[in-house]
Amino acid sequence: MPHLSIDFQRLKQDIVDLSSIGRRENQGLYRMAFSAADIQARQWLQQRIEDAGLQLYVDGAANIHARLGWDGERPSVMTGSHLDTVPGAGHLDGALGVLTGLECLRCMQEQQIALRFPLESVAFTDEEGRFGDMIGSQAICGQLTPESLHSARDLAGVRLIDAMAEYGLDAMDALHAQRRPDSLHAFIELHIEQGPVLDRQQLHIGIVDAIAGLFKWQARFIGEANHAGTTPMTMRRDAFQAVAELSGEIPRILEENGSIRSVATIGRVELSPGAANVVPGRAEFSLEVRDTDPLVLEALANAFRRAMSAIARRRDLMFEFEVLGELTPRKCDPGIVDTVASLCREMGINSTHMHSGAAHDTQIMSTITRAGMIFVPSKDGRSHSASEWTAWEDIELGANVLLNTLNRLAGA
Amino acid sequence: MPHLSIDFQRLKQDIVDLSSIGRRENQGLYRMAFSAADIQARQWLQQRIEDAGLQLYVDGAANIHARLGWDGERPSVMTGSHLDTVPGAGHLDGALGVLTGLECLRCMQEQQIALRFPLESVAFTDEEGRFGDMIGSQAICGQLTPESLHSARDLAGVRLIDAMAEYGLDAMDALHAQRRPDSLHAFIELHIEQGPVLDRQQLHIGIVDAIAGLFKWQARFIGEANHAGTTPMTMRRDAFQAVAELSGEIPRILEENGSIRSVATIGRVELSPGAANVVPGRAEFSLEVRDTDPLVLEALANAFRRAMSAIARRRDLMFEFEVLGELTPRKCDPGIVDTVASLCREMGINSTHMHSGAAHDTQIMSTITRAGMIFVPSKDGRSHSASEWTAWEDIELGANVLLNTLNRLAGA
Repeated sequence: MPHLSIDFQRLKQDIVDLSSIGRRENQGLYRMAFSAADIQARQWLQQRIEDAGLQLYVDGAANIHARLGWDGERPSVMTGSHLDTVPGAGHLDGALGVLTGLECLRCMQEQQIALRFPLESVAFTDEEGRFGDMIGSQAICGQLTPESLHSARDLAGVRLIDAMAEYGLDAMDALHAQRRPDSLHAFIELHIEQGPVLDRQQLHIGIVDAIAGLFKWQARFIGEANHAGTTPMTMRRDAFQAVAELSGEIPRILEENGSIRSVATIGRVELSPGAANVVPGRAEFSLEVRDTDPLVLEALANAFRRAMSAIARRRDLMFEFEVLGELTPRKCDPGIVDTVASLCREMGINSTHMHSGAAHDTQIMSTITRAGMIFVPSKDGRSHSASEWTAWEDIELGANVLLNTLNRLAGA
Repeated sequence: MPHLSIDFQRLKQDIVDLSSIGRRENQGLYRMAFSAADIQARQWLQQRIEDAGLQLYVDGAANIHARLGWDGERPSVMTGSHLDTVPGAGHLDGALGVLTGLECLRCMQEQQIALRFPLESVAFTDEEGRFGDMIGSQAICGQLTPESLHSARDLAGVRLIDAMAEYGLDAMDALHAQRRPDSLHAFIELHIEQGPVLDRQQLHIGIVDAIAGLFKWQARFIGEANHAGTTPMTMRRDAFQAVAELSGEIPRILEENGSIRSVATIGRVELSPGAANVVPGRAEFSLEVRDTDPLVLEALANAFRRAMSAIARRRDLMFEFEVLGELTPRKCDPGIVDTVASLCREMGINSTHMHSGAAHDTQIMSTITRAGMIFVPSKDGRSHSASEWTAWEDIELGANVLLNTLNRLAGA
């Protein structure tokens, strides 16, 4: 079977056009969910879907669907990503998956490919989490409740309900966006890697076989604040020294209990009283740990707890922590992984199996259907930044891999 | 020669009376230099000096002197400390040295002790550094300039000049407070230890043989902020890991290059961007190191520079630092140290030679005259806190050691 090709110039123009919506001079994109720029991008996308002669459908969660061959009976093969961005974002995170999805449907339609299953390309609502992570895909997977919608607020305290009402939308309608699992045959998302692995190894496609889960703790060591001049080293109960010791143990803990995919990060540290001439009596810090295997994550949580507890005991400190967040790792569907891998081999593309360290809508979608992801390289691993970049050649390759994957999954 | 004794009930009453000036309910003392409470305390002290029939003298830096046997010709033996406090202070830091000095002069006068040298008890201006550390003793030692007085401001931006003018004082007069070295025979200060050493060892008197100097750096490691999920451990340039490694090397650096008196403290750490899910690209931190020997301090500065530089090189980071402050260590006068030690032996007081880790007016005064310090225990080492406490028995012992030291230094 010869491979299909997308219309690269048309895709490129869409990417360039969308990248002007919500742009601030030299600061990147500001297209946070239900901001004016997000609404403008939504309107632009709906027009593009209608221009293409595809069926437009907006569900109760304001997810925008382009549909091809939809009959309301057969399960669909769905692709897509999100239009919304973090503040100061690049032009590809999310947008790439939405626009390549649209382009794939246009190609399948133009080339009159016979379909076993209808195709849907979706732009999910609020993936970046202005009001809570991945609201659109959560709605489709039935993970929202009236309570969660009522209480959803952004960092400035704006309620999701009010932000949607401003555009004539009723947030409670998100409860009606839920899809029956048997209405979906598969889901696949094209996304930039947002990490340095493909770029460093000069590979063009990442075949995602799993999406990492994580636990995120807010922890603290509590000792005693003392005068840094008058308190001998042996009489100190220095809370920062304890965090530093824990930090130094991270490599050992990962090597003993983790996998090659494990990462652990102390990204936030706050010392009290926080003066140069006072021994820190209290050190608050975040610990975030990720892996693709739930059992490995559990082993790491135990190992970190033991290490912190031993450090606190040895240094005569108190130690506490709260769980700020947990996300279960998800495996991608082995059939989809094999399909993408076969295509890359046939098309002569340098690729690798890898995992996603970041969370994506695919993680949610995998709870109700077989799911997979395709990564293209991020220059220097940069993302959530105006300097986000992927070579146009890699975008074209990624779009063609997606197109042919959709054809294998949905084509007759 | 029998030992003299102070009037403990009179001293205790003075301490209790002064401790009510500037007190905020459950928050300790707020008697910052040239605050209304500081002025009230100054007026109270001047009245106590006049009540005692001692000669009152206020110099251009607003240092308040009580004088006994003053003739303007012979050099004086001076004792004293400061009335001003940090915000939320205890009742003894500074006040103890001022009030025991006053009590000693009253006793010497009442008991008609013959004097080789006049006695002065002084309350120095702004030891705690609202407008700059130890302004009063710096004025006496000729360390102020018109520029330093003009530019002195508190944290809220209030100028020293304006704060003094509010009470009819001209800050420029501080330049006239300078004393000729030959106008002083010796200086000795009684102070609470502000550290845990005497209390832990159940000793009653610390004979201070040196005052630590210090260097204080503002330093930073600069790496790269990356997504904590998508950046493998081996591809990170984590600035916090570098600070943590440095912290872990502190014991080795002190053991290899320091003395038993060396201390090093990382009291402030700030990570950027400072989010749980981002590898810290930048870590700002303070490093403060103290010792009593200038050569040891220099060796420690070199060792810390080498360690930071090696850590930065190993982790592919940039490393910078600025010197925020430096203070030269000062030795106490061996004659005064021996006098205090002999007195403690004769009086049967459990004492130890020790250094002061904190800075004091004595540090400044030692630049123009022989100087010494006497420490009494601080309960649990607490200071700069409303819970500062020294047993009344120890205060009485300390005051008696000071009285007899003054008698040995100034008595006929």
